[in-house]
Amino acid sequence: MSKVGIIMGSTSDLPVMQEAIDILAGFDIEVEVDIVSAHRTPEKLFDYGKNAHERGFKVIIAGAGGAAHLPGMIASLSPLPVIGVPVKSRNSIDGWDSVLSILQMPGGVPVATVALDGAKNAGILAAQIIGTADKCVLDKIITYKEGLKQKVIEGAKNLKNHN
Amino acid sequence: MSKVGIIMGSTSDLPVMQEAIDILAGFDIEVEVDIVSAHRTPEKLFDYGKNAHERGFKVIIAGAGGAAHLPGMIASLSPLPVIGVPVKSRNSIDGWDSVLSILQMPGGVPVATVALDGAKNAGILAAQIIGTADKCVLDKIITYKEGLKQKVIEGAKNLKNHN
Amino acid sequence: MSKVGIIMGSTSDLPVMQEAIDILAGFDIEVEVDIVSAHRTPEKLFDYGKNAHERGFKVIIAGAGGAAHLPGMIASLSPLPVIGVPVKSRNSIDGWDSVLSILQMPGGVPVATVALDGAKNAGILAAQIIGTADKCVLDKIITYKEGLKQKVIEGAKNLKNHN
Amino acid sequence: MSKVGIIMGSTSDLPVMQEAIDILAGFDIEVEVDIVSAHRTPEKLFDYGKNAHERGFKVIIAGAGGAAHLPGMIASLSPLPVIGVPVKSRNSIDGWDSVLSILQMPGGVPVATVALDGAKNAGILAAQIIGTADKCVLDKIITYKEGLKQKVIEGAKNLKNHN
Amino acid sequence: MSKVGIIMGSTSDLPVMQEAIDILAGFDIEVEVDIVSAHRTPEKLFDYGKNAHERGFKVIIAGAGGAAHLPGMIASLSPLPVIGVPVKSRNSIDGWDSVLSILQMPGGVPVATVALDGAKNAGILAAQIIGTADKCVLDKIITYKEGLKQKVIEGAKNLKNHN
Amino acid sequence: MSKVGIIMGSTSDLPVMQEAIDILAGFDIEVEVDIVSAHRTPEKLFDYGKNAHERGFKVIIAGAGGAAHLPGMIASLSPLPVIGVPVKSRNSIDGWDSVLSILQMPGGVPVATVALDGAKNAGILAAQIIGTADKCVLDKIITYKEGLKQKVIEGAKNLKNHN
Amino acid sequence: MSKVGIIMGSTSDLPVMQEAIDILAGFDIEVEVDIVSAHRTPEKLFDYGKNAHERGFKVIIAGAGGAAHLPGMIASLSPLPVIGVPVKSRNSIDGWDSVLSILQMPGGVPVATVALDGAKNAGILAAQIIGTADKCVLDKIITYKEGLKQKVIEGAKNLKNHN
Amino acid sequence: MSKVGIIMGSTSDLPVMQEAIDILAGFDIEVEVDIVSAHRTPEKLFDYGKNAHERGFKVIIAGAGGAAHLPGMIASLSPLPVIGVPVKSRNSIDGWDSVLSILQMPGGVPVATVALDGAKNAGILAAQIIGTADKCVLDKIITYKEGLKQKVIEGAKNLKNHN
Repeated sequence: MSKVGIIMGSTSDLPVMQEAIDILAGFDIEVEVDIVSAHRTPEKLFDYGKNAHERGFKVIIAGAGGAAHLPGMIASLSPLPVIGVPVKSRNSIDGWDSVLSILQMPGGVPVATVALDGAKNAGILAAQIIGTADKCVLDKIITYKEGLKQKVIEGAKNLKNHN
Repeated sequence: MSKVGIIMGSTSDLPVMQEAIDILAGFDIEVEVDIVSAHRTPEKLFDYGKNAHERGFKVIIAGAGGAAHLPGMIASLSPLPVIGVPVKSRNSIDGWDSVLSILQMPGGVPVATVALDGAKNAGILAAQIIGTADKCVLDKIITYKEGLKQKVIEGAKNLKNHN
Repeated sequence: MSKVGIIMGSTSDLPVMQEAIDILAGFDIEVEVDIVSAHRTPEKLFDYGKNAHERGFKVIIAGAGGAAHLPGMIASLSPLPVIGVPVKSRNSIDGWDSVLSILQMPGGVPVATVALDGAKNAGILAAQIIGTADKCVLDKIITYKEGLKQKVIEGAKNLKNHN
Repeated sequence: MSKVGIIMGSTSDLPVMQEAIDILAGFDIEVEVDIVSAHRTPEKLFDYGKNAHERGFKVIIAGAGGAAHLPGMIASLSPLPVIGVPVKSRNSIDGWDSVLSILQMPGGVPVATVALDGAKNAGILAAQIIGTADKCVLDKIITYKEGLKQKVIEGAKNLKNHN
Repeated sequence: MSKVGIIMGSTSDLPVMQEAIDILAGFDIEVEVDIVSAHRTPEKLFDYGKNAHERGFKVIIAGAGGAAHLPGMIASLSPLPVIGVPVKSRNSIDGWDSVLSILQMPGGVPVATVALDGAKNAGILAAQIIGTADKCVLDKIITYKEGLKQKVIEGAKNLKNHN
Repeated sequence: MSKVGIIMGSTSDLPVMQEAIDILAGFDIEVEVDIVSAHRTPEKLFDYGKNAHERGFKVIIAGAGGAAHLPGMIASLSPLPVIGVPVKSRNSIDGWDSVLSILQMPGGVPVATVALDGAKNAGILAAQIIGTADKCVLDKIITYKEGLKQKVIEGAKNLKNHN
Repeated sequence: MSKVGIIMGSTSDLPVMQEAIDILAGFDIEVEVDIVSAHRTPEKLFDYGKNAHERGFKVIIAGAGGAAHLPGMIASLSPLPVIGVPVKSRNSIDGWDSVLSILQMPGGVPVATVALDGAKNAGILAAQIIGTADKCVLDKIITYKEGLKQKVIEGAKNLKNHN
Repeated sequence: MSKVGIIMGSTSDLPVMQEAIDILAGFDIEVEVDIVSAHRTPEKLFDYGKNAHERGFKVIIAGAGGAAHLPGMIASLSPLPVIGVPVKSRNSIDGWDSVLSILQMPGGVPVATVALDGAKNAGILAAQIIGTADKCVLDKIITYKEGLKQKVIEGAKNLKNHN
């Protein structure tokens, strides 16, 4: 059974990261949520990164703000695909710090970065990755995208009716 | 057999994107390279995106510069995971345009963005995605990362010997 | 009769885009408003862009936020002049993402970009474009500009009277 | 007969602006090129802007760098559509100054801004504007866009043949 | 008698610009306040700039937001020193547009730029300029700076007493 | 006789600052050039700032790069108008550091900031300041501006002759 | 006994700087707090910087906003390590001005810069510096870091219990 | 005896970091140089950070480019003061990525950040930290700063002689 690890640097990141949890729940993909701080619990970071692929995880989603090192350090320690969510934290310089310290990884150690506070897309991307080998999940994604389309089409219809 | 589609907006992006081709060759993962321009060949974009998952692709890597729409449009059209490579093209404003127009996708349509000109990491990420369901590829990634480590350790040794 | 197509990526863009609708109404120019999402309704995007010039549109105004691909993709698909309105959406990085992903189009496919949230100016620009071949609209623009001037002059008069 | 006015703040902008001249020549659209400096020849700026629409111009293309006031001041003075080309001049701060001082016009006075150094697109946009009322020019644009597509398709073919 | 002209693009700039008026009142320097919009009243701009030095002005303070052309155009038209105040207007991109379109003037046409929303400093700078030839104003500036110092020293004293 | 003090943080700033020296020489305004480093010669900075107005200076031009404190510290110490020239030094982050650390002075202590590397404009601004009380200098500025205009007009003529 | 000097440009910086005072109190390190404005009390700045190392200070923490010159000028005047805290003041351009005018010091005169509004980290860094020669303080830092870890681990436990 | 650990993410950072080595050699402070990559040798990073304070280091200088995690991760693992040097690496976005991912550390885990490529200042800062408990090093710093001053004064003298 496919499992996605969702970690974040602080409980204060939970409101942003909840969207990843929710969307994966909607795809019936098992998730395990944890707090792992690169800067305050480096040993836990180390254990988590080193063992994730042997504990049955397929993908890891890591969210962090400011000088965000969690996604990159997990990517350093694990052979799994790591999805990074830049979180716009309280003292962030408009989010640029989170974005750049997750995105600009050196050659050899990728982090799949999504938009600022884009935890929802991190969840969908994790599902797409699982869907590369799980026809059932792939079909759910196709259905999900069809749903996005229908919502826009209804919005367009409502707009026309009101004019 | 796993296949990665590598596309770019223009042949001028090839020098950057070649790193993705080479690294995947090193992992023995089959790639198919093509030129697809969101702005000049929209029909080809459409066909490519719509059919990629039925043509046996598992992952798509899309590189583009400036107002880079190729990765996001493929992500719009395909249920597959799409990796975006922001290319620092000639008239780019220091690469910010490519980065932001690939990274900041709206909720529902993720693009897994890597660093500016980070095609090598795009290739590794594609391999990691395939590795989630292919033990052999996962092992190659573990070996690859071990190689990165050895090179740093040798560099450190040389540094010490020269002092 | 001249027609301007006004489209936007989401109903949440309507408060910003309404200014374009209103100003064109003031110029007695017919508009048709629709929701077209590059990322969620790519087929509708495709149809819209391909057929706009045959449906009697003269100009298209497209507003979108974040990694804003709607204006550029319509410009890719249509031979008509496309005016892009960067919308400062909720998770935008201060609007820079919208601005750069609309403005920095590659050679061959222009988008006439206006200021961040500048839908009013998009409407005026559309009228000016129509005015290049419609003396009556051109005269209305001259009158409109005269009105702008009078308002400033009255403001200056009030300021003097209060001192 | 349709005429496009192409002006720039300094002869040093000519290498960038030449692309607009060339592309309009290719569309057989008459252009008149002049040097008008908002900061050094304000009287000429004034005369140019005030009289352009009576001298038979349909569209004005204005290129300038740094604190670029030429496009916006012409837009202030003329009822015609004005296309602004931000030029990355020698002491520019990476082009941001030119881009922002052309793009961010206040409500009431639009400038149709194209990409940094994007004079080619300014020329195409001018042709598209003329094409809204000139079927022959519209057809040339459709042909031009078809040509862009063919070049990409050939590039893709060559890429495949070399592999 | 020395006179400072204070102009701004719109009455909405008055709350920011009031600080310049107040500080000059404190220095007993005569000011004349007016609304002059580069984009909506270009003729008034022209007259104002052309005649300012003959109307007895010594210095002009010009405040504007967004693509702020007022200070630079006055500097183009007048031989007087022009102080520019970048105003952070409603749709401004964090003030960068105002700052860059006032600061980055081309060689030959300086604008003495102060901080974003720094109208108070514009007033002091105007007084300093007048003080270069007016011993009485220079003395007032020396006294003013002494006052700034005393306020900090008292603040420091209070801080110590509270600890 | 009017005197302008031109100081810079390092001899490496001289190539940029030379333009201020040259333009003032052209206006027959006496200048005194010196190296004063806020960070390496704080005592000299202090003496210079404290005594400048008693040594007969009317205006001070201060150029510095990086975290540029020279203009602001002189403005802190002297009642004279201080013109700041942000210099794009070797390790500068694209000039942003110099610009912001000169421009963004707190209320009470203005620095008249000119464009990045804009020493020429600093010289002209100094002349304009002196011109507020010296009719002869004012006339030279009027003549200088007339010269700028003639050069543009000749450039325009040459452009026409070559076409 | 070890003493840390904490200074700031204005009492309005106190809410931010209080975190440095509090954390050092928690480490039982003596602090002396003062208001020293580089721009309004340059003499006090001079005295403070010149004498700090003879008054028994080991480290100085200096906080300032906007064009922040206090940390750099103290670093210019004192041989002690100076920690700079960029404060996001009211008219700051998103904090960039404070950050760059503290961080980008020229070769020879370092300022140990911490994050925007990062006074807490400035306090910890001061303690770490004192800890380099004071085993007791070093132990307190080790304990403090252990405390950070425990808080994250408890947060993680609570998160699991709630799911 | 005092020891400074100088580490960097890659041998390609050596040309920048050499300045820290050289300046500390000039202060007769023992240094140990090593290559430690946060992303490629996480185990070495871990060992280094965990044991540095027991191996006799007083201060650690860590240089890295792009998404630079080395300084912050060492700060996470060690109770010693960590000085971070943002290196402008090849694919860096103008250095912003290195600067922000080192500077913007969360509360609790400071990194003393110096200017972009500012390794020389990192060395001086390390000496200043050691100087807080070593009178001999403090005196060397005072002498060093005196030398900086003399060089500027001589530069100023030469400038005067050449005029």
